Amino acid sequence: MKLTPAAAGTFAIAPTPFFDDGRIDEASIDRLSDFYTEVGCDGVTVLGILGEAPKLEAAEAEAIARRFVKRAEKLQVIVGVSAPGFAAMRSLARASMDAGASAVMIAPPPSLRTDDQITGYFRQAAETIGDDIPWVLQDYPLTIGVQMTPSVIRKIVMDSISCVMLKHEDWPGLEKISTLRGFQKDGSLRPLSILTGNGALFLDFEMERGADGAMTGYAFPEMLIDVVKLSQAGRRDAAHDLFDAHLPLIRYEQQPGAGLAVRKYILQKRGVIASSAQRKPGSAITATAKAEVDYLLSRVARVDPRANLGPQAAAAE
Amino acid sequence: MKLTPAAAGTFAIAPTPFFDDGRIDEASIDRLSDFYTEVGCDGVTVLGILGEAPKLEAAEAEAIARRFVKRAEKLQVIVGVSAPGFAAMRSLARASMDAGASAVMIAPPPSLRTDDQITGYFRQAAETIGDDIPWVLQDYPLTIGVQMTPSVIRKIVMDSISCVMLKHEDWPGLEKISTLRGFQKDGSLRPLSILTGNGALFLDFEMERGADGAMTGYAFPEMLIDVVKLSQAGRRDAAHDLFDAHLPLIRYEQQPGAGLAVRKYILQKRGVIASSAQRKPGSAITATAKAEVDYLLSRVARVDPRANLGPQAAAAE
Amino acid sequence: MKLTPAAAGTFAIAPTPFFDDGRIDEASIDRLSDFYTEVGCDGVTVLGILGEAPKLEAAEAEAIARRFVKRAEKLQVIVGVSAPGFAAMRSLARASMDAGASAVMIAPPPSLRTDDQITGYFRQAAETIGDDIPWVLQDYPLTIGVQMTPSVIRKIVMDSISCVMLKHEDWPGLEKISTLRGFQKDGSLRPLSILTGNGALFLDFEMERGADGAMTGYAFPEMLIDVVKLSQAGRRDAAHDLFDAHLPLIRYEQQPGAGLAVRKYILQKRGVIASSAQRKPGSAITATAKAEVDYLLSRVARVDPRANLGPQAAAAE
Amino acid sequence: MKLTPAAAGTFAIAPTPFFDDGRIDEASIDRLSDFYTEVGCDGVTVLGILGEAPKLEAAEAEAIARRFVKRAEKLQVIVGVSAPGFAAMRSLARASMDAGASAVMIAPPPSLRTDDQITGYFRQAAETIGDDIPWVLQDYPLTIGVQMTPSVIRKIVMDSISCVMLKHEDWPGLEKISTLRGFQKDGSLRPLSILTGNGALFLDFEMERGADGAMTGYAFPEMLIDVVKLSQAGRRDAAHDLFDAHLPLIRYEQQPGAGLAVRKYILQKRGVIASSAQRKPGSAITATAKAEVDYLLSRVARVDPRANLGPQAAAAE
Repeated sequence: MKLTPAAAGTFAIAPTPFFDDGRIDEASIDRLSDFYTEVGCDGVTVLGILGEAPKLEAAEAEAIARRFVKRAEKLQVIVGVSAPGFAAMRSLARASMDAGASAVMIAPPPSLRTDDQITGYFRQAAETIGDDIPWVLQDYPLTIGVQMTPSVIRKIVMDSISCVMLKHEDWPGLEKISTLRGFQKDGSLRPLSILTGNGALFLDFEMERGADGAMTGYAFPEMLIDVVKLSQAGRRDAAHDLFDAHLPLIRYEQQPGAGLAVRKYILQKRGVIASSAQRKPGSAITATAKAEVDYLLSRVARVDPRANLGPQAAAAE
Repeated sequence: MKLTPAAAGTFAIAPTPFFDDGRIDEASIDRLSDFYTEVGCDGVTVLGILGEAPKLEAAEAEAIARRFVKRAEKLQVIVGVSAPGFAAMRSLARASMDAGASAVMIAPPPSLRTDDQITGYFRQAAETIGDDIPWVLQDYPLTIGVQMTPSVIRKIVMDSISCVMLKHEDWPGLEKISTLRGFQKDGSLRPLSILTGNGALFLDFEMERGADGAMTGYAFPEMLIDVVKLSQAGRRDAAHDLFDAHLPLIRYEQQPGAGLAVRKYILQKRGVIASSAQRKPGSAITATAKAEVDYLLSRVARVDPRANLGPQAAAAE
Repeated sequence: MKLTPAAAGTFAIAPTPFFDDGRIDEASIDRLSDFYTEVGCDGVTVLGILGEAPKLEAAEAEAIARRFVKRAEKLQVIVGVSAPGFAAMRSLARASMDAGASAVMIAPPPSLRTDDQITGYFRQAAETIGDDIPWVLQDYPLTIGVQMTPSVIRKIVMDSISCVMLKHEDWPGLEKISTLRGFQKDGSLRPLSILTGNGALFLDFEMERGADGAMTGYAFPEMLIDVVKLSQAGRRDAAHDLFDAHLPLIRYEQQPGAGLAVRKYILQKRGVIASSAQRKPGSAITATAKAEVDYLLSRVARVDPRANLGPQAAAAE
Repeated sequence: MKLTPAAAGTFAIAPTPFFDDGRIDEASIDRLSDFYTEVGCDGVTVLGILGEAPKLEAAEAEAIARRFVKRAEKLQVIVGVSAPGFAAMRSLARASMDAGASAVMIAPPPSLRTDDQITGYFRQAAETIGDDIPWVLQDYPLTIGVQMTPSVIRKIVMDSISCVMLKHEDWPGLEKISTLRGFQKDGSLRPLSILTGNGALFLDFEMERGADGAMTGYAFPEMLIDVVKLSQAGRRDAAHDLFDAHLPLIRYEQQPGAGLAVRKYILQKRGVIASSAQRKPGSAITATAKAEVDYLLSRVARVDPRANLGPQAAAAE
């Protein structure tokens, strides 16, 4: 089922599971798919920045997308297709859609600077993949370095009928959501789903500003789902209470570069992936950091028992 | 009293108070000085990035430094002297020390790239101000864009006998503190005070990794002081409990660009500064953001009554 | 006399002469003023990037501007006033105009990224200095890193009635001049003087594309003047013949970072400035580089005898 | 035959020829191979930045490398294998060597900043491709943004026995060559071929500083070959005379972004490639620019008849 501007809820960003030697771990892909389905995610996004996509060969990327699509049949699967060139982007996009994906996601290349360069890039990208493929615009200046104003985002969306969603992870970004929703009120922007990323660091207020849900890789998607639902139900205090209980860990996970190692460590503890290894070049997690994460988990678990993952990491490592 | 490598505790980063028309508000400088003294800060850092230093003329900067030093006589005052050129840096550094400041703080200019450029810059800077002036090295890559490895920091410190403190605000930075403390254990780095900035977002664990205290502009320095003391006393859970209660607001304040407006808004609510105005070009805070801050304050106040600042912002603005 | 959009011809970019110990060399300022006047420049621009402006204290900058204005009374003097903050920019701008300068020049700060940030910055800058002060927009992405499209430049110019000139040094920039001149033909851009910088590396074709002249620091402004005049007179081959004879040296001078040392070396050889020293931190010129410059001078002199500067640098240095 | 540190002479950087519709033009690849062979190049480098490598799919890149290797059997073929991830880099490197290439070339990814990041990256890259594959280190900060000091280059070379050549295109870079050659004199750097790129803008002096030859895409490799030989023969004036005759065109070709269009235009005029088209997103060349190139060609031809390419571009286009 193709993604539409009405998409909402929680889309998990999936890491790509590897064995310690760098090979792709397909059984863990299946467990990830099952896990996201069972906890109640609406979708899953694969081959994003978190998914170590640039480290994959083209054939590997296609195989991973296909496997997720096949196994997570109840979820909408979005495939990250950002690439240095349009030829590779088109290939992966078309192969993914042929396999049954719901949409693709495109981030701007770091070299873009002026408004015209940015809007021109996305116009060409959308043309290249073909306007029968719904796509998600990723706005992540903290990591990518490309700054898109609300007006530029509006232009990109209005230029391409197939752009159906914004993955919003500007930082700070609260006013950006308000401005975009204001554009829709004044009729200058058509319907657009906005899911928030940025590690969920502002999910609480982003929902109140008008986001339709979350799209991020926090290792407890259950919390994302609940906060999104509580917020949508207007239960503000309850949403914040749950969110705040997780915030110390959310913040810990959202460390640039180091965050992926933390997430894989937790997902491994949860029994979802077999190894926390990253393909080279990757970042490791020290024994001290593991102990810090364990401590945070034990604190979260006082409020949210789902974070109770049993014994802490052994001190010696 | 000059700053030494034994410095520890909490140093507040002071904003520069302006009237709505952009003039400097000297009475508010005095109230800020009194406030930091009364809550129990060990020092105050003025004319930092938060202090809108680049917007000041040279004579204004000197006058502000002098006024803080005079009024906050019980505190150690550190003056930010980062400047595009060494002549202006030297002038402000010497004038500040003549007025009674304890030290100066220097951040790298954004153009530096290679390790040699960075170490060479600080060697020349230290020579220029004179080695009778203790100085603080600011390591803030998120905002400044200059990346200094632990080895580079060690070289800078070992090259300049007058470098006494690191304002640590790399992100992520926990392993950096551990590495630097490891250098001291293996004898390759001399004593150095490490205070953590980065909006206190990782103060809880940074203390556990070996930081000597906090240097940041969070609008409740009382919390910083308490967390630093609890952590130093080994009361881990109590430190985290207090920290976690403030974390939703800490996180909100730490938004790049927008954070200063939030801090000035709270300090104004607390009656410390008369206006939350920034000198142009500044960032404003919307009515929605004010209401969000008020909501966060009310939530913090459930645990820490000091955050109870009375009625919330009027809806209409 | 204030600068107008009708300004044309050759404006030399003046270096700031220092003694070997870093003090400002006022006698050399006077000789520079006389030199530019005698060779027939139409104006001189001081305190630009080439002028080591960021290394100066505010009072020094004002004194240098005043001295040039006083001595170069037959020339239009443009004063670079780019500064990290508007307060310092305004002070230098007003002091310079009070002293008799013709205009000021403003470059964008390197942190600007989006079109809105750029146009917003210049709108505020123009307001800050006051619209009675004519100003020159400097477009130098190679060094500054800020990319302004022709549309953005048009908006800046149309937003500020006091913007009278573009210092064009985008690279490549030929199509930019054509586009801007096209805007004027279609009536969407008002009259604007365009002088080309970028070390004159494209002066030959930039004149043919519609530039009004040159504004750069090449050590033989006589050549700039002649090429501008030959080109304006439609003597294409003659303009290129002269330009090409100098091109090997132009190219050598235009090395980022190293160029200033080469220019000061030649101006010293020409007897205009007493020392080729730069204020710290500066770049030096090696004995090998001096010998290379001497060789280039001897080759230029075969076509243009003005480049005959006598004996070459001694081998040993 | 594998590339060794004794490599010298002229290596052409080949563009990738496309048809107007974006398909790869294999017949033009063969003509390019023949052309480089016939004019006397020592080698050819394919799939570099000039070769639009990021726009190719993996299978296309391999096919292009294979075709060049097969046809240009008398030349040493170097294949650019820079990629966002090591998996893709390894695949292309091994496939190219299996097909008979002499070496591969690796540029640093733009995200690298600190010395340790840079040296660590190349250590991992060399391990990944395997130390039986000779590789060329590309140092091109103007385009890539990564600054490598001479010490960093030395460490990279000393860390990897299979690094046999530096493609030197820092700018300015003359002192860098001198420093590296000095390292070899003092015994701290092992033998290393240095070929200069940067559009040949400094080929004249780079040869005198110790370069072993040229590796760049200037559309008249004959000139590069002659200048390299004249310089190696100690015929300084003759080398400069020939170089200077071409310099106006060299400079015109070396415009960032626009240069490739100029080169393809000239190679098309020379009958080597069938179309000057670039795969999207590409830069076009205007009619005015074509006329400027034609004018430059006619001027070069006065000294070097090889630049006589017949009638100029029609005015109307």
